[in-house]
Amino acid sequence: MAEANTRRRARGGGGAARRAERTAVRIETAKYIERNIPNFEVLNDEALEIIETNAETVLEEVGVNFVDNPAALERWRNAGADVDGERVRLPRGLARELIKTAPSQFTQHARNPEKSVVIGGRSLVLAPVYGPPFVRDAKGGRRYATMDDFNKFVKLAYMSKWLHHSGGTVCEPTDVPVNKRHLDMLMAHMTLSDKPFMGSVTDPSRAQDSVEMCEILFGKEFVQENTVMTSLTNINSPMTFDDVMMGSLEVYARNNQACIISPFIVGGAMAPVSVAGTLTQVLAEVLAGVAYSQIIRPGAPAIFGAFVSSIDMNSGAPTFGTPEAAHITYGAGQLARRLGLPYRSAGSFCGSKLPDAQAAYETANSLNMGLLSGVNFMLHACGWLEGGLVADFEKFVMDADQLGVLHGLAKGVAYDENAQAMDAIREVGPGGHYLGCAHTQANFKDAFWKTELLDYKPFETWEEEGARDTRTLASARVEHLLAHYQQPHLDPDKLAALTAYVEEKKASMPDAFS
Amino acid sequence: MAEANTRRRARGGGGAARRAERTAVRIETAKYIERNIPNFEVLNDEALEIIETNAETVLEEVGVNFVDNPAALERWRNAGADVDGERVRLPRGLARELIKTAPSQFTQHARNPEKSVVIGGRSLVLAPVYGPPFVRDAKGGRRYATMDDFNKFVKLAYMSKWLHHSGGTVCEPTDVPVNKRHLDMLMAHMTLSDKPFMGSVTDPSRAQDSVEMCEILFGKEFVQENTVMTSLTNINSPMTFDDVMMGSLEVYARNNQACIISPFIVGGAMAPVSVAGTLTQVLAEVLAGVAYSQIIRPGAPAIFGAFVSSIDMNSGAPTFGTPEAAHITYGAGQLARRLGLPYRSAGSFCGSKLPDAQAAYETANSLNMGLLSGVNFMLHACGWLEGGLVADFEKFVMDADQLGVLHGLAKGVAYDENAQAMDAIREVGPGGHYLGCAHTQANFKDAFWKTELLDYKPFETWEEEGARDTRTLASARVEHLLAHYQQPHLDPDKLAALTAYVEEKKASMPDAFS
Repeated sequence: MAEANTRRRARGGGGAARRAERTAVRIETAKYIERNIPNFEVLNDEALEIIETNAETVLEEVGVNFVDNPAALERWRNAGADVDGERVRLPRGLARELIKTAPSQFTQHARNPEKSVVIGGRSLVLAPVYGPPFVRDAKGGRRYATMDDFNKFVKLAYMSKWLHHSGGTVCEPTDVPVNKRHLDMLMAHMTLSDKPFMGSVTDPSRAQDSVEMCEILFGKEFVQENTVMTSLTNINSPMTFDDVMMGSLEVYARNNQACIISPFIVGGAMAPVSVAGTLTQVLAEVLAGVAYSQIIRPGAPAIFGAFVSSIDMNSGAPTFGTPEAAHITYGAGQLARRLGLPYRSAGSFCGSKLPDAQAAYETANSLNMGLLSGVNFMLHACGWLEGGLVADFEKFVMDADQLGVLHGLAKGVAYDENAQAMDAIREVGPGGHYLGCAHTQANFKDAFWKTELLDYKPFETWEEEGARDTRTLASARVEHLLAHYQQPHLDPDKLAALTAYVEEKKASMPDAFS
Repeated sequence: MAEANTRRRARGGGGAARRAERTAVRIETAKYIERNIPNFEVLNDEALEIIETNAETVLEEVGVNFVDNPAALERWRNAGADVDGERVRLPRGLARELIKTAPSQFTQHARNPEKSVVIGGRSLVLAPVYGPPFVRDAKGGRRYATMDDFNKFVKLAYMSKWLHHSGGTVCEPTDVPVNKRHLDMLMAHMTLSDKPFMGSVTDPSRAQDSVEMCEILFGKEFVQENTVMTSLTNINSPMTFDDVMMGSLEVYARNNQACIISPFIVGGAMAPVSVAGTLTQVLAEVLAGVAYSQIIRPGAPAIFGAFVSSIDMNSGAPTFGTPEAAHITYGAGQLARRLGLPYRSAGSFCGSKLPDAQAAYETANSLNMGLLSGVNFMLHACGWLEGGLVADFEKFVMDADQLGVLHGLAKGVAYDENAQAMDAIREVGPGGHYLGCAHTQANFKDAFWKTELLDYKPFETWEEEGARDTRTLASARVEHLLAHYQQPHLDPDKLAALTAYVEEKKASMPDAFS
């Protein structure tokens, strides 16, 4: 696995330097994952073809609604759809024809070119949790998120080796007016990190602001010719495309920026209670959404999204890490690959209120399934708690550590002469041990994934050190990382221009909190 | 999924009966898993062929040791091996020729015929943790295991819907003399449960006792013609077959009982530090062990075992839920299928000292990998803690609940007309919701896996109820299950005969504690 951009903090000389070295925080970012393992596929060809045929039937007979968006209806009419009020019905094959211009993979550029990512093909890009109005940590409990929390999460993401992407709304900074918080969030991603990030979708004007800030950061021409943002366009399932999301999509597509077209599904509520039925609806919705993006600008990057959870039929609560969610995620990956579109799904999903065992079971189930289902862009890859209502500081670093496991799994198995290790087997022989043999000495440093969090100490040592559970270890790691954060360099002229842009925008309108 | 043997406790009539009903514990046992999903394969044909060729080279050039076992050496000599001292070298192809008589699947009979299991093919049988000298629960902390603990675990396994098997040494009852505890353990499995179980391997005489107790339980003739026990024969890796394990294997194979031939590998210590090298050694060891079982009795059931963990190179501690362990488990499954042998691997593995998030991440990684790697018999499927040193009561029921997820995943995806749900999509349409529609009403009861442990309640309710974490919920579930345990019926004559056998055996020798 190639790893880029190693940096090491150290101060002074001699003993002080060595001590500093031992406690220093290495800022490393792994390259995005390039899978060297197969995808796991649960649907056979017959099932896939039935679902694809049914999705065309849904588009043709039932159609989708584009709400409060007369311009979209006009575009659809011109593209050959049957428009009746806000209902858009797509003749069989129209959506598939339109999406042919969407690229199967694209590069999202970061301001640090070493951290640019490829989305699509065999790649997997990992980004943190998106959207929680609350945060939680062991010390402060559950509370509304603030801009201070937001900045901390951006710093943690910047310092997390296995995160390739800074994400978007890592939490909702509820102490900043709704109509201005996107400016502060973008500033945080642009100045506190140098990883790629996401644009605002809460209003078309805020999408436009996101584009303009990127024009300052990357240069106007660069932005028009390259993709520097992804954006999360949720579909209001079933089959409803609202004006805010579509208005934002129009801005991004027009500017060649990437849109994740993502049905938001709680199975049994926003989609049928069956896996095949849900996949049919997801496919129909994504086809309509991606087709619309290509009407706006042929060739604009679009991602096949699927946010899926199952449901607790007693309470109506969404449930995560379940077999049904896994089947949908595996199946949607197959459908996305057959369309030749990059695929977004999975994440550190859980329903638990605490970063406890329930959270970890559910999360590990979801992360493993995400890797094996061929996801190309995994939003929510760390920090998600309580059905997405909470961004949890401890869980953020716990999950981020587990993302290293995904990197290791994706590497696949080497079988060159060194990996075959026949010399070692001959050297050690029956009854011996391998710890000291030449092959082990030559290979042990890179042989195993290493946690930066979990405890492997003997029981007695662990007990003497306070019998700490995972959450306690994670609290210490959060504190340690934030204490050692160092801001990446940014051209002072760009910083000044961004600051001026944000100040001017904020001054141009009164605060709004809804 | 077919489910057998539902029983319901209820007392009295009217309101009392309804109240009893609500708090009653349903004793259900799911049928063993019959996979309707593919296996996940990480090795290509070239890699598999290299590993297979190398394993033959290891057997031919390096060989294996059969220690303190002159009869085994004699048998090997007669079978065509090159025997030099205790070293046995197998000419290329000899082991493969010998193992041809081993069945690719077999039935292990339970005393309750509805709970008999098929091991091999597409099946997956789940059995609890095996071997820990310590137990732990939230109330009592970590302590040496006793027979009372053992009995409790057997009861919990009996009451766990997703466990198909009662296992063997679910913990070491350290308060019973070493030379007598196998008798009490077998009595517990035979009388407190009606699920299939494992025999003793700590001494050939104890294996013989296990056979004799089974002859009482099942009838002498039945035992000779059928398999009623599995047994765990660990190989002392690298490539050493000790006399205790092989002596036990000889007893079981001679009596047509199943042996798991299982290399015990901490990667980098007992096998090379590389995945391909470890797989080579595992394959060589299993080939030698299974071949030996077929020399003893051609056709005796033998299982390709692989206990694998990676290692923390700083401390030497075994590590679990890691990518390297996953690669070995996936690869060994491929090798087992190419040999046509049932496959044993994976489990609720973790290194954590507590049933916390670390434990759950590691366990979920291991369980998912076990299912997808095509394991047929999963020992340690629940209750494992602290690298196998501890059987944890709370983790037992936590893991056992997660085994339901494996059942759901293994079902695969239905795509019949009902599953396609086109009527539902037509009925609900854009902007509607599915909760009340006819398809949901008809299907919701079986649509989703249901936890019996995890919390999906709204935050406020959860907080009012004491903000309980998973371990706290699990403590309550352990207590509830044990309070509602009811012993399955056993023929009083058999019970009397078993009791007399155990008493006589115990009286025949002085206590020994080593």
